[in-house]
Amino acid sequence: EGNITQGQSKAASCVACHGANGKAVNPIYPNLAGQNEAYLELAMHAYKKGERSAGQAGVMQAFTSSLSDEDISDLAAYYASLTPLK
Amino acid sequence: EGNITQGQSKAASCVACHGANGKAVNPIYPNLAGQNEAYLELAMHAYKKGERSAGQAGVMQAFTSSLSDEDISDLAAYYASLTPLK
Repeated sequence: EGNITQGQSKAASCVACHGANGKAVNPIYPNLAGQNEAYLELAMHAYKKGERSAGQAGVMQAFTSSLSDEDISDLAAYYASLTPLK
Repeated sequence: EGNITQGQSKAASCVACHGANGKAVNPIYPNLAGQNEAYLELAMHAYKKGERSAGQAGVMQAFTSSLSDEDISDLAAYYASLTPLK
């Protein structure tokens, strides 16, 4: 189980695309606010392992390459905790 | 630009996992309600082309293999139109 507060502190690189509140700044990026924690973890691990290649997957692989399992858990917990915005 | 009404009529296979209202039935699946239309299109095309391999990507490749570009646009418009739920 990730730590929400730790996740927020680790999200500095994420906000450029996914927004300060988890609402993406461009519709080609996904909103993350309120997404399911387990799915967010799965997606970050997939990007890190090179298991996604479309869209911004290259950027996501670069960003996730430096994340530990704990970092990924914390980030997932943080974004899952946010209220989804339309 | 997809057609929301058409998208709803084409979503019968999606609801088993992503929920009748776009709220996933299991946290390993993503919520789709209120997600960005452009990102949803990108993701479906990626699954269809085999550009994602983690998690349920095999299932998603199977489901998207029979979708036309228009089907994908309509489904993306439909899910983007729904109110996100936490």
